[in-house]
Amino acid sequence: MSKMSVGVIGATGMVGQNYVRLLKDHPWFDVKYVAASPSSAGKKYADAVAGRWLMDEDIPGPVRDLIVQDASDVEAAKGRCDFVFSSVEMDKKAIRETEDAYAAAGIPVVSNNSAHRGTADVPVLIPEINPHHLEIIPVQQKKRGWKKGFVVVKPNCSVQSYMAPIHALRLAGFPVARAIVSTLQAVSGAGYPGNPSLDMTDNVIPFINGEEEKSEVEPLKIWGRIENGEFVDDDSIRISAHCNRVPVIDGHLACVSLGFESKKPSLAEIKEIWLAYRSLPQELGLPFAPPHPILFREENNRPQPRKDRDAEKGMAVTVGRLRTCNVFDCRFVGLSHNTVRGAAGGGILNAELLKAKGYLK
Amino acid sequence: MSKMSVGVIGATGMVGQNYVRLLKDHPWFDVKYVAASPSSAGKKYADAVAGRWLMDEDIPGPVRDLIVQDASDVEAAKGRCDFVFSSVEMDKKAIRETEDAYAAAGIPVVSNNSAHRGTADVPVLIPEINPHHLEIIPVQQKKRGWKKGFVVVKPNCSVQSYMAPIHALRLAGFPVARAIVSTLQAVSGAGYPGNPSLDMTDNVIPFINGEEEKSEVEPLKIWGRIENGEFVDDDSIRISAHCNRVPVIDGHLACVSLGFESKKPSLAEIKEIWLAYRSLPQELGLPFAPPHPILFREENNRPQPRKDRDAEKGMAVTVGRLRTCNVFDCRFVGLSHNTVRGAAGGGILNAELLKAKGYLK
Amino acid sequence: MSKMSVGVIGATGMVGQNYVRLLKDHPWFDVKYVAASPSSAGKKYADAVAGRWLMDEDIPGPVRDLIVQDASDVEAAKGRCDFVFSSVEMDKKAIRETEDAYAAAGIPVVSNNSAHRGTADVPVLIPEINPHHLEIIPVQQKKRGWKKGFVVVKPNCSVQSYMAPIHALRLAGFPVARAIVSTLQAVSGAGYPGNPSLDMTDNVIPFINGEEEKSEVEPLKIWGRIENGEFVDDDSIRISAHCNRVPVIDGHLACVSLGFESKKPSLAEIKEIWLAYRSLPQELGLPFAPPHPILFREENNRPQPRKDRDAEKGMAVTVGRLRTCNVFDCRFVGLSHNTVRGAAGGGILNAELLKAKGYLK
Amino acid sequence: MSKMSVGVIGATGMVGQNYVRLLKDHPWFDVKYVAASPSSAGKKYADAVAGRWLMDEDIPGPVRDLIVQDASDVEAAKGRCDFVFSSVEMDKKAIRETEDAYAAAGIPVVSNNSAHRGTADVPVLIPEINPHHLEIIPVQQKKRGWKKGFVVVKPNCSVQSYMAPIHALRLAGFPVARAIVSTLQAVSGAGYPGNPSLDMTDNVIPFINGEEEKSEVEPLKIWGRIENGEFVDDDSIRISAHCNRVPVIDGHLACVSLGFESKKPSLAEIKEIWLAYRSLPQELGLPFAPPHPILFREENNRPQPRKDRDAEKGMAVTVGRLRTCNVFDCRFVGLSHNTVRGAAGGGILNAELLKAKGYLK
Repeated sequence: MSKMSVGVIGATGMVGQNYVRLLKDHPWFDVKYVAASPSSAGKKYADAVAGRWLMDEDIPGPVRDLIVQDASDVEAAKGRCDFVFSSVEMDKKAIRETEDAYAAAGIPVVSNNSAHRGTADVPVLIPEINPHHLEIIPVQQKKRGWKKGFVVVKPNCSVQSYMAPIHALRLAGFPVARAIVSTLQAVSGAGYPGNPSLDMTDNVIPFINGEEEKSEVEPLKIWGRIENGEFVDDDSIRISAHCNRVPVIDGHLACVSLGFESKKPSLAEIKEIWLAYRSLPQELGLPFAPPHPILFREENNRPQPRKDRDAEKGMAVTVGRLRTCNVFDCRFVGLSHNTVRGAAGGGILNAELLKAKGYLK
Repeated sequence: MSKMSVGVIGATGMVGQNYVRLLKDHPWFDVKYVAASPSSAGKKYADAVAGRWLMDEDIPGPVRDLIVQDASDVEAAKGRCDFVFSSVEMDKKAIRETEDAYAAAGIPVVSNNSAHRGTADVPVLIPEINPHHLEIIPVQQKKRGWKKGFVVVKPNCSVQSYMAPIHALRLAGFPVARAIVSTLQAVSGAGYPGNPSLDMTDNVIPFINGEEEKSEVEPLKIWGRIENGEFVDDDSIRISAHCNRVPVIDGHLACVSLGFESKKPSLAEIKEIWLAYRSLPQELGLPFAPPHPILFREENNRPQPRKDRDAEKGMAVTVGRLRTCNVFDCRFVGLSHNTVRGAAGGGILNAELLKAKGYLK
Repeated sequence: MSKMSVGVIGATGMVGQNYVRLLKDHPWFDVKYVAASPSSAGKKYADAVAGRWLMDEDIPGPVRDLIVQDASDVEAAKGRCDFVFSSVEMDKKAIRETEDAYAAAGIPVVSNNSAHRGTADVPVLIPEINPHHLEIIPVQQKKRGWKKGFVVVKPNCSVQSYMAPIHALRLAGFPVARAIVSTLQAVSGAGYPGNPSLDMTDNVIPFINGEEEKSEVEPLKIWGRIENGEFVDDDSIRISAHCNRVPVIDGHLACVSLGFESKKPSLAEIKEIWLAYRSLPQELGLPFAPPHPILFREENNRPQPRKDRDAEKGMAVTVGRLRTCNVFDCRFVGLSHNTVRGAAGGGILNAELLKAKGYLK
Repeated sequence: MSKMSVGVIGATGMVGQNYVRLLKDHPWFDVKYVAASPSSAGKKYADAVAGRWLMDEDIPGPVRDLIVQDASDVEAAKGRCDFVFSSVEMDKKAIRETEDAYAAAGIPVVSNNSAHRGTADVPVLIPEINPHHLEIIPVQQKKRGWKKGFVVVKPNCSVQSYMAPIHALRLAGFPVARAIVSTLQAVSGAGYPGNPSLDMTDNVIPFINGEEEKSEVEPLKIWGRIENGEFVDDDSIRISAHCNRVPVIDGHLACVSLGFESKKPSLAEIKEIWLAYRSLPQELGLPFAPPHPILFREENNRPQPRKDRDAEKGMAVTVGRLRTCNVFDCRFVGLSHNTVRGAAGGGILNAELLKAKGYLK
């Protein structure tokens, strides 16, 4: 089976670099096309990122010499990529227009951006949680007159640390009605250059612009249902998020208190549910699917960002400190790798699911 | 008016050093006596702390040459100190026995230790919140047969960031029924050497041994009432705490969600209540009392540990990010200086209140 | 005696903010005028720095309401300030032109910028080291046709940690012929936002653009002589500098190996020379002069940035670890506060010297 | 070919854990025996390190269940390991006696400890630099009456960042006469718990106990010659080292200034020499030998600890910033991974060389 030709739109930014890095030697996908802002267009990729390549590993050989294209030149992409990963850095309106243009040109868009997360017929996808939301793609295509193209997005990185653990409990018959979450988020989440060292040395910052809203709202769509060709938020759960920036390179940690709707599982049941949890990506054996979507650490001081973020190649959520809550029913700590699972790795898993389900050809 | 002669028991440890530092030039108190473990006894204070003096300022001149006494030798303290600050590092039973011995010898004990916080007739004092709890002192003395001596303790450093803001609301007629708190606590809270740099670089630790229990339980006693000569916990509020260690030198930050009993103040009312809040230490003009016990920052990214911990000489609580909560009624971020307000500075304010109310003579 | 009216040109940047902060309650100088880029001009100072005030203390009251002027509008400054501190952020040519324009308008310029450091008739001043270089001012004025105005600059922050210790040895009759210096420099030296936290967490960077050249070249002018109305570099000493950026907020540390010309002092003599070292600012009792320009720490692990940077209000150099060198004659570690002594504090001391010597009226 | 059975003495400490981690799936060596202090003896390895396993990866399966032996019980090791890696934590005399006891019992000792580095007939081995020093082993055995056992040690981690680059130049006909080195060393070099976070946040420490002496003296033995069955130091080079601790997890960086004896290479020649440098481990294809012992980075701000320490699996030295020196001839920055190349990885490479040369059977 020959690999699919993949484009990365916004390839010179931090998320784009992560795509390039993570797709090295991918069994299904081959990066054949890179696009960025006009200032990079026309340069070899290696030259375009010279002095601002942020990954620890060097640029994968085959990508070094690709000529960077202008991200807004959709025509250039036609015939050269079977689909694109989008991580362009523009204002929201421009992102939506750019992504729509690729889709209109018959090129499916697997996006990292927040621009389309609120769009009523665009699925916000976590393959383990709402794979059935892909059913909206034909609706989306029909409504917009797109043939082959479509847009699928992934959620904000912050939600990955608590959504899977809550979802597993929902699936097991224990609907969660309320969650109060405090996150301790890594500086890589702000991109590069991001937070100044002057702000993050001997300090934390109890605010990340727009992050709390995303952390509270996006899960409701992910758990939502499709009605009349549009997503309708789940209204059975309310989430309150306090988002903090801490001096950690990678790994978002969440302190979570949960209140159940009615039926309350015991701590032992919760642990058992988490350990047993598997979903469609695991069943399908998707290359980037973590064999164990939820890992459970017994030590009382885990998960920790530096020690647990790379679990299952950065694609698993690690939970720990499960205990009863004085105010709600239970509480725990969750951790996920924000630039792998929470960004490019999550995008790749989305594409793998799309491929496996026949949406990418 | 001549100053009172003060002893510091446990004077060579980190909290003890902070007492020595903060009491320099105190208008009412003069450090005339220092005691520590037998291994330090007999040495000049400057020699006893050589190589482990942790304060940024140098040792105050008059204390340098004091001869360190054995903390367990209560007789040595008699006649040489009007009262003692206790920050001894022993197991809890030994601390209780040591503090009781000083009290029995007629030397009042103003303690920083957790050992006596659970003792039914020992007040856990925050001068702004429960000054009336000092009324138990005669009961304590009578029950134990102590004449002049008694024991008063201060609470855990973590509670300072949220108790005063909640207390001001209670006083204003808005009782809080539930609070979910996530703390981001500084490494100085673990004493010296405390957390290894290997654990705190590019990392946070979502666990501090015993801290969550203290953060949840101690406020109930502080807000409690005296019945039959014993403290009875307030049962109108439940607190749930997630305690995290972060790579910050000083300053404990708390993300707090509050649910009110019934009557809910508006955000504007809350802010007004906090800004107007004054209490007995302010009325009495105690030297270490912060003129504004609660400071309010309007910026959306404050309070921050490095920028706000020293507000009002480290004795104020700084709050910010007041907003509604998706699950409860409101939420905010609070910050206090853990080794000043949360430790030695808080102990000094306790002593000042005791002096002003006539308990120290 | 009434205070002089002082302007700060470039008042909204990090160095300008430090001037505003440090000049609060200065006995001789009063900030009466602030200027910055056109985008800030016309706003109240408090509004112009809203959201980017970087100091820990709040903005001094009297400066809050000053209306920010356009730094390039020299006419506006006339009659409103007796002299200006310059910390404008422009390209070097524009800085030189701006500073010249103020001088031409009769307003002396005490500059923090590097732009004029290489100008043959502009003194690079460290009041303890080359106060006699002020003699060039009349020459500078005559050559340029300036009446009352002139330009004096301060050196790069990195040289402060090793120049005073070397200078004291030179004065004592032990000329240093060679020095190899490795610096560990704080992130505040890069201004704001400066180094990203992503680069400085679990990392150091062995490069600071242009810093090694400044560290090697500027001392030669400071130790140089005036010949024919121009400065001629000292050629009796060679300096080699390795400059590193480390995750420290404030305080530049230098590891220094020294080789003497011929006569070599013993370690005991060196220490004695440093302890005894006083210079003109101390004799004149200038307000910002550190009583002890060089402090000596006996502990084998000092100086350390966090513990020693604030010595003598951030104006002293702290040295330690004096020992023989395996290759040269001796070595030591020096430390100075880069944003106080190395920037605004150093500029203020320059102005104080100028005032005391009659150059500012 | 069956693998050799290997013991790790001091297996529960940080270096011992690194041996266990790095030897996982080693093609030649199999960890079959672990020993530690009496307090760990008798426990399963997984239990002995519970709560203090510091590696990011989990304990390799086969080692988990090994019963920890008493390191001082040499008899227990007999017949169970073909040789041992020694990283015991005792005082120096006890270490020498322990290592001698294993050797006397016929068990070769490949040591990480400093205890035997000064012993006249014990080689301090860097396989790329002084493999011929192994010739002393028969002498050592004969003098001490050992049959099959012997002791070989590795040098201090700090020397790895500059010795290979200097050695390559020596080999190429450019002997270095003097080197002034300033190191910025990672906290993992101090073991666990090592440096408190309280000391390393917003700070660096310009002192590491005993480190400068090791950094200056050990290279002289490594470059020394064998005379009358003893090592004689090279006296053609003098090294001066300033050693600093910085808040970096792994990776020792060195700023190096070099003066040549007489013939001076151009910068281009130096670079060429480094790029071409290969040695015996590369020729023999030893499993842990880095294909390129010296990597050269062209970027002006590299090497950096976090980005370059893992180059060639942590076994290479990365150099950069090659430029002329104002005082000596040239200068550069070197970096090596202190807990891989500088500790357990270096020990494993030593053992591989010993095996390849027939000293281990």
